[in-house]
Amino acid sequence: MSDFRERAAALDAADPLSAWRQQFQLDADVVAYLDGNSLGRLPLRTRERLATFVREEWGARLIRGWSEGWVELPVVVGDEVGALLGAAPGQTVVGDSTSIGIAKALHAAASLAPGRTRLVVDASDFPTDRYLAEEVARQRGLELVVVHRDAEGDVAASLADVLDERTAVVLLSHVDYRTGVLLDLPSLTAQVHAAGALVVWDLCHSAGVVPTSLDTAEVDLAVGCTYKYLNGGPGAPAFLYAAARHLPHLEQPLPGWWSADDLFAMAEEYRPATDARRLLSGTPNVAGLVAVREGVAMVAEAGVEAARAKSELLTGFTVDALDALGERGLALQLVTPREPDRRGSHVTVRVPDARALTARLTDRGVVPDFREPDLLRLGLAPLTTSFAELHAGLSVLAEELAH
Amino acid sequence: MSDFRERAAALDAADPLSAWRQQFQLDADVVAYLDGNSLGRLPLRTRERLATFVREEWGARLIRGWSEGWVELPVVVGDEVGALLGAAPGQTVVGDSTSIGIAKALHAAASLAPGRTRLVVDASDFPTDRYLAEEVARQRGLELVVVHRDAEGDVAASLADVLDERTAVVLLSHVDYRTGVLLDLPSLTAQVHAAGALVVWDLCHSAGVVPTSLDTAEVDLAVGCTYKYLNGGPGAPAFLYAAARHLPHLEQPLPGWWSADDLFAMAEEYRPATDARRLLSGTPNVAGLVAVREGVAMVAEAGVEAARAKSELLTGFTVDALDALGERGLALQLVTPREPDRRGSHVTVRVPDARALTARLTDRGVVPDFREPDLLRLGLAPLTTSFAELHAGLSVLAEELAH
Repeated sequence: MSDFRERAAALDAADPLSAWRQQFQLDADVVAYLDGNSLGRLPLRTRERLATFVREEWGARLIRGWSEGWVELPVVVGDEVGALLGAAPGQTVVGDSTSIGIAKALHAAASLAPGRTRLVVDASDFPTDRYLAEEVARQRGLELVVVHRDAEGDVAASLADVLDERTAVVLLSHVDYRTGVLLDLPSLTAQVHAAGALVVWDLCHSAGVVPTSLDTAEVDLAVGCTYKYLNGGPGAPAFLYAAARHLPHLEQPLPGWWSADDLFAMAEEYRPATDARRLLSGTPNVAGLVAVREGVAMVAEAGVEAARAKSELLTGFTVDALDALGERGLALQLVTPREPDRRGSHVTVRVPDARALTARLTDRGVVPDFREPDLLRLGLAPLTTSFAELHAGLSVLAEELAH
Repeated sequence: MSDFRERAAALDAADPLSAWRQQFQLDADVVAYLDGNSLGRLPLRTRERLATFVREEWGARLIRGWSEGWVELPVVVGDEVGALLGAAPGQTVVGDSTSIGIAKALHAAASLAPGRTRLVVDASDFPTDRYLAEEVARQRGLELVVVHRDAEGDVAASLADVLDERTAVVLLSHVDYRTGVLLDLPSLTAQVHAAGALVVWDLCHSAGVVPTSLDTAEVDLAVGCTYKYLNGGPGAPAFLYAAARHLPHLEQPLPGWWSADDLFAMAEEYRPATDARRLLSGTPNVAGLVAVREGVAMVAEAGVEAARAKSELLTGFTVDALDALGERGLALQLVTPREPDRRGSHVTVRVPDARALTARLTDRGVVPDFREPDLLRLGLAPLTTSFAELHAGLSVLAEELAH
């Protein structure tokens, strides 16, 4: 790996985002954090902002905080997330969990396709997506249809087999949480629309690291989490996007006072908001929103295009290093596509005894992610992962694989 | 109000909970905080704990935090909240918002009453409760039946008129968010059960301040927020209780990976947990749970019985003071019951121009709550409200009413 060390040094020297790393908390016991796609590092400014929020807003302003800005946070932070996703203001909110967002998006999409009888999911969708899709289908009397990826990890061919006038909604993941395959969002969106159906995109593994043009691609609804590349913290509230053309018409299954036209009217009758607040339900966690806002601002300042450029270099470096290990006869099999434009920001390899390997790596300060049954997932976060860090992590991986 | 000043001093001197007040952030600009029933004050230990959590857990442990305790927090904190509510461990979780919890509880209760066709709500339930009940009824094809309070604010007579073999679920609020009326939870639960129906209790305005025996009363499901008397912070995650006898059987409408039998199996097929985790959905906000835990611990240490005893003195003091103002000819009408055992921990008065009065009071550092159209709500939090503070607030109220 010594030639990779020099390459890493050169890449770090040329990295326009390299200064961002110092704006996050870095602890000496972590040699290489390769799990930013599960939980992003802590921004120093978030640490400060949360302390200020707790003391000066919650503690000092108390209930007055709601009328001094908190009440708008779900849409304000939503718009800021939306800006990273190619969404004009007024279509995105932040609150609840990704799972709740998926349920809302699927119900909403189905409500916009009356008379259609099928809900299509991808077998490789994240479990919570599939569980919720199954339940939404059950509740609405829809038939659940499962499509499968082809050998390249694409879903277009399988989709083509099932899309027809019966299709109400298709749920797809922009980046596959296991393989890292990046789907062609505009093309698949157009394919779904050609059948007259709606598409719900799960952006969990692409938000903040893959440029996405929700408005231009005419995506219907989208959901994603903020605790990965957006560095919002463990269990940070999720975002939910619905195209402006749908907002006044969609029905969502969890109407609460926060989705009502007038939050504080506390009216006898429920009148839904016609703007993005229509997607909300109950009181959002304010500290969660405050933290998300900082992480989102950092990605906005760095730029998603710049993040993507570095991400491609990070994953490329990783693929090359893994190839070199394979050439040395170490047992590993690359699962993630070699073409940069077909992958997100994590690289997955199939290895023997992946769970035990993950534990050994973690003991040595190299933190990757394990996914059942035999996958090792290396998440690369452009704002925080340096090439030197990545090289250090891959070197330890090489040693452990060689044992 | 000068005799009330002496009485306040005597009550403070005899108050066994008086030392708790100093464990919360107190700022000089707030003369009297009378809105602890909307958003509780900030515990100093929560401020410290959150800072430690952010720096030493999220920042330093990163993804490893999940296996070092975070993953259990929804049930651990749930059990701690449950202990305040008379619930044995294993039946309560914390996560999501109250609104989401109400939707889950109503769906779950309805799933346990197959063949029954009616969902009963109280016209005085909080708006989000009514909106969600209406939507759940619509989704499940149930008939929504609305009961009304009698002149004393009780609902038993109206319930008796509608309860029959068609009733699936009844949704009731332990303490009315406007009037402060405290319902007889054991008796009403028995009344609903006598008709073979299930009851869902909204405990938002009683949790932590009114002793509640969920298990002994054989309550079916209960929901409530943690940002009022439990001091969990703005939009803190809510709790959801389901009796152990129901947990293995109930269906909930938002099944995600967190409600699956094995969270990390990411199995093809959804197998619901048979314990309290069955009530969860997606990833909970960890900082929110950490904050709730501190507030709950403080109430547990102080004791709910002791909190209730002080609460009755606080509300009694308020009622007497308001009566004295009424005798001086000031325009106000007590809405909350005079009998201590028929009210929660807030006192509501009808006043002319309540919205403007609330604004004037707030300008003078006295923070009450306004509720449409003409209600002034005075929330009294036993751990943080001193009698001197209450007296100061009521004195300013008297001046403003006299203008």
